[in-house]
Amino acid sequence: MDNVNKMLEVTAGIIIIGNEILSGRTQDSNLVYISKHLDLLGIRVAEARIIPDDESAIISHLNYFRTAFNYVFTTGGIGPTHDDITSIAVAKAFSVKLVEDKTALWLIDQASKGRGINKAHRKMAQIPTGASLIDNRFSGAPGFQIENVFVMAGVPKIMQLMFAGITDRLTGGEPIKTINITTNIGESVFADLLADLQRQYPEISIGSYPYFHDLKPGVNLVIRATDQSRLQELGGEMIKMINRLGGEILEIQPVAE
Amino acid sequence: MDNVNKMLEVTAGIIIIGNEILSGRTQDSNLVYISKHLDLLGIRVAEARIIPDDESAIISHLNYFRTAFNYVFTTGGIGPTHDDITSIAVAKAFSVKLVEDKTALWLIDQASKGRGINKAHRKMAQIPTGASLIDNRFSGAPGFQIENVFVMAGVPKIMQLMFAGITDRLTGGEPIKTINITTNIGESVFADLLADLQRQYPEISIGSYPYFHDLKPGVNLVIRATDQSRLQELGGEMIKMINRLGGEILEIQPVAE
Repeated sequence: MDNVNKMLEVTAGIIIIGNEILSGRTQDSNLVYISKHLDLLGIRVAEARIIPDDESAIISHLNYFRTAFNYVFTTGGIGPTHDDITSIAVAKAFSVKLVEDKTALWLIDQASKGRGINKAHRKMAQIPTGASLIDNRFSGAPGFQIENVFVMAGVPKIMQLMFAGITDRLTGGEPIKTINITTNIGESVFADLLADLQRQYPEISIGSYPYFHDLKPGVNLVIRATDQSRLQELGGEMIKMINRLGGEILEIQPVAE
Repeated sequence: MDNVNKMLEVTAGIIIIGNEILSGRTQDSNLVYISKHLDLLGIRVAEARIIPDDESAIISHLNYFRTAFNYVFTTGGIGPTHDDITSIAVAKAFSVKLVEDKTALWLIDQASKGRGINKAHRKMAQIPTGASLIDNRFSGAPGFQIENVFVMAGVPKIMQLMFAGITDRLTGGEPIKTINITTNIGESVFADLLADLQRQYPEISIGSYPYFHDLKPGVNLVIRATDQSRLQELGGEMIKMINRLGGEILEIQPVAE
């Protein structure tokens, strides 16, 4: 990517908070969801970290990310139990107080269907001062945004609904277009020619991802850039390259109109 | 976790290298695989990072991780194409040369079934000086270990075979035992009582993970410690707590003998 594009691009960092991911008990699916949707908004995820439910860890990673990237998204740790410590950690990272938010408490009360408010509900209504709420249409207890940091639930369904509610608060850069060409020839056959193409199209990111389906190898060639016409030009060159090498094109995405 | 356990524990950091994960194109499955297997070996994954195919990023994250943790595992970026830059970055992180390894080249040649060695094959045989190879029984091109860092392929099938070949090089701490109790009562109902139990069993990590199946809520209560008898004692207390609150126990893992 050239330097002008680098300056114009909008970046994000994602922090997945949760011992259950690090112990291998739970397969995270929030990262891929957030990344894919940010990509469509023209926001590049520059880095992601998976960290434990540890207050000082959350504070230090968050404070680094919120200065390094345009946006930060966190998932996990905003529930009512003792191991939910994200809100207090975020408040400390921003050096603000964690206070009971009346709107948050009302939203939680509404969702509890008249069973009454207890200490656990009040804990979930504790929001850092200066934060704005992120709606939780699934189970009531909201997430929150403070400056460029979006704090969301860890349960995928809730996180996805929260994310849907914040996309209008995000300003992306020029959307990155992608062409994906799938071939059945091995990387070692075309590696040199592909490197030549990368030199000819320095502003386009060329990724080569081998895979195996039922032991049959294939490669996804993924090219990404903001300039659609240059991207299509390179796509054409790559198809010619594969044909010259006697390879098959298994799939092209998006399908040309 | 008390301080004695913290001192005795063996930690690991995992670095997932690949733009395709950060763009949301690919769902990573290597982290959960490695984490789960390290957990069984008594090695705690303290942190994981997902970083782009960027040489300086790989160098700086790797140099931090290899001093911070007992073991480091990386996946991705050891193929033959121009975007495979992990090996050169690792060599630079350790300030050693990247040289053609005869054994690696032989392994790659064997796997190529007599189609001959080209420049791309030679690239994959470039290994940092002082590293020992990690066998790739799937497609030939090996990974490598240098000091406490294990560099593996990104393709899950290959990574898993590589990982199977290195477990005898790893020395874990005391294995962590886990009991998982699944209940149908909400976190807000038991949050206070659970916090009390956490105070009574400070050496046991108590995690509470809500989930929704077909909109029906449930919670996985996961308790983890090295001391099996204390763990079972706490498990009994938690079952009593759930019964007292009128909740149902949906599942207990492992099943008591």
